Amino acid sequence: MTKPLFVRRAAQLVTLRGTSETPVSGKRMSDLGIIEDGSVWVEDGTIRYVGHDSDVLAQVGERLSEADQIDARGKVVTPGLVDPHTHVVFAGSRENEFEMRLSGATYMEIMNAGGGIHSTTQATRNASEEQLYQETLPRLDRFLQHGVTTVEAKSGYGLSLEHELKQLRVAKRLDDDHPVDIVSTFMGAHAVPEAYKDDPDRFVDIVIHEMIPKVAESGLAEFNDVFCELGVFTPEQSERILTAGKEHGLLPKIHADEIEPYRGAETAARVGAVSADHLLRVTDAGIKQMADAGVVAVLLPGTAFFLMTEAANARKMIDAGVPVALSTDRNPGSSPTESLPFIMNLGCLSMNMTPAEVITAATINAAHAIKRGHVIGSVETGKQGDLVIFDAPNVAYMQYNYAVNLVDTVVKKGKVVVKQGSLL
Amino acid sequence: MTKPLFVRRAAQLVTLRGTSETPVSGKRMSDLGIIEDGSVWVEDGTIRYVGHDSDVLAQVGERLSEADQIDARGKVVTPGLVDPHTHVVFAGSRENEFEMRLSGATYMEIMNAGGGIHSTTQATRNASEEQLYQETLPRLDRFLQHGVTTVEAKSGYGLSLEHELKQLRVAKRLDDDHPVDIVSTFMGAHAVPEAYKDDPDRFVDIVIHEMIPKVAESGLAEFNDVFCELGVFTPEQSERILTAGKEHGLLPKIHADEIEPYRGAETAARVGAVSADHLLRVTDAGIKQMADAGVVAVLLPGTAFFLMTEAANARKMIDAGVPVALSTDRNPGSSPTESLPFIMNLGCLSMNMTPAEVITAATINAAHAIKRGHVIGSVETGKQGDLVIFDAPNVAYMQYNYAVNLVDTVVKKGKVVVKQGSLL
Ligand SMILES: [Zn+2]
Ligand SMILES: [Zn+2]
Repeated sequence: MTKPLFVRRAAQLVTLRGTSETPVSGKRMSDLGIIEDGSVWVEDGTIRYVGHDSDVLAQVGERLSEADQIDARGKVVTPGLVDPHTHVVFAGSRENEFEMRLSGATYMEIMNAGGGIHSTTQATRNASEEQLYQETLPRLDRFLQHGVTTVEAKSGYGLSLEHELKQLRVAKRLDDDHPVDIVSTFMGAHAVPEAYKDDPDRFVDIVIHEMIPKVAESGLAEFNDVFCELGVFTPEQSERILTAGKEHGLLPKIHADEIEPYRGAETAARVGAVSADHLLRVTDAGIKQMADAGVVAVLLPGTAFFLMTEAANARKMIDAGVPVALSTDRNPGSSPTESLPFIMNLGCLSMNMTPAEVITAATINAAHAIKRGHVIGSVETGKQGDLVIFDAPNVAYMQYNYAVNLVDTVVKKGKVVVKQGSLL
Repeated sequence: MTKPLFVRRAAQLVTLRGTSETPVSGKRMSDLGIIEDGSVWVEDGTIRYVGHDSDVLAQVGERLSEADQIDARGKVVTPGLVDPHTHVVFAGSRENEFEMRLSGATYMEIMNAGGGIHSTTQATRNASEEQLYQETLPRLDRFLQHGVTTVEAKSGYGLSLEHELKQLRVAKRLDDDHPVDIVSTFMGAHAVPEAYKDDPDRFVDIVIHEMIPKVAESGLAEFNDVFCELGVFTPEQSERILTAGKEHGLLPKIHADEIEPYRGAETAARVGAVSADHLLRVTDAGIKQMADAGVVAVLLPGTAFFLMTEAANARKMIDAGVPVALSTDRNPGSSPTESLPFIMNLGCLSMNMTPAEVITAATINAAHAIKRGHVIGSVETGKQGDLVIFDAPNVAYMQYNYAVNLVDTVVKKGKVVVKQGSLL
């Protein structure tokens, strides 16, 4: 039995109450359900009481003395941040390509030159399970230090059943061992392997008939994702892959309209994808179809920033009623960062989202993007005890004091795992 | 007597040797003087031995056992970072304006609406010396956590002799009390106070005849700076102010060509300014004159990023032979960040500088921009023992793993002041 944890008297307690059922869209993205002088009582890993300090005090009564208390005066408390799109399990590092890009090469040029994703695939295939585990661990530590308590993690650097399963097993071990929760996505269709370059449909068949059934059987993934992009997988191939996944119980996600408009959003809506991600080049028709189908738009402004391109049009999507989430896209090629707080800064600075909207996007909408809206992403009775205390007097300050990690304390399932910015 | 400190076996020890005499320009900005398996022996606050670990070992001989050792294997060691342009001493906070700007107001519009610098001036004037000191302290802590061991700090939120001297006294107290060294600049000509709006020349006279002599006499500032900008101070007024400062021993600096091209760089060259800062709209003629006069260009890409405008053309300046330095521009209006490492990321991402160039810009050239090139900014025998150990295997990685604070250890005058990212 661990002691209850009582986080008290936050200047702003961001509850996001009433958002567990469906992703939050439109003007509701600005409603954070802030309680001033707010307190949270967490017990057995679960949030028990939430409210003004005086109200919570009244509810806990004499049990007050049982709890470990944290003074959050002058600070902001939010739900644990959720990163709904990462490729965090991989081997190797690609800073060498960074200088290539600084001198003008595009992402696709680097990829076609045998660099890019193929070099990470090579390194990941060559790595043992233990190596992969050890290389990923410090990235999860850094996520946690930035207030991220749950990350989605995709396979997709194996590109063969054996190595895809290896990546997923490593994610599972990390989920078991590390405070950060990992939600796994199978992404065998992350790239067309060199060997199938001239017959990509053959590879699509392998993904559908050999990989998906085995992955589903393994229980190691909940989602199925595909890189729908000109020169990678067509919308038709993507739809086949996502439909096959659904038949095996894997929920569809899609990398959509990143480099060229390519009917990615439309495909997402048609297959009933949980999320469509990137969307830098999404069409108005695609946006409309996503809004109608309730597909979450997972936007990745860090990738645009790192690739020095323009970010997605978040405003247009929010105004059209698409629920927007934010993510780091943590990967070794186009977004090597674990700072979801900085991605939130970018949400404001490069996509004109408001300070309130970026919080909704990195908490409850991110949770909905991985079908965890009922468990995490808001501070409500019965939800998992994942909280972040930011060294900021209010929500706007968190975006204003930019590019700085303001995380003071992280609570995971009721347990303090980061204190004064340092891992415990 | 403190023990010697022996930082050993860095994967890359960035020495920047041979750069103490003059600012580094052109291709020499890419030459970091990297020593692999490099070690540094610091004693009595001063760097004593630098070289390959085996060479340093041979030099220290039996004294090895006297020293505290730090294992820097797998890490990058650089000189302490230097921030040559901040307005870090101020009262209040302006996150409220941030949302104003997100909805489209420009910096000048906010300023003309009585917000902007005037609101900070009001708060700073109203603050007691102790309040100002207490509000600034955590900003210096955050600088230190980001590897910054020396900052320049400007007055300019007092705009009257009394309050300008108050700001400078606070900077002096902080310099005395805090590990970060502060180099002070008088900037009475930071804005035209409301009271002199219709007769700015009258205010210029006050700066020249009343403030500068007293400030010089106080010994509280080394530099004299002016905001040369359309609608603020003209190039002629700026030149008068900087010339007056020189006559009283204050070295000239200038805020130049930020919003409009306004002969700021040309004025810098003519008065022999140590640095010209901002330079987003500098002309080709201005660049040429700066190169000829040896004026350091202090570039502030964070400000452009935060204001959502285009950054300065660093490449053009470097190619023209202007020595380039980088700075946060830490201030409550247009750049509320203490992360000089992120500014270095921006140097690469928004200004196409190379990973090597941004290090030169944030160390030795930043030191030259505050006339400290002979004391700090490189790792050489006889220099101050200011070092940073980054949790990165090489210099490119520091820019590649973006928006994350990779600082592991900070050494100030031979003493460890940050360990595993936490202040001691
Ligand atoms: Zn992705
Ligand atoms: Zn300035």
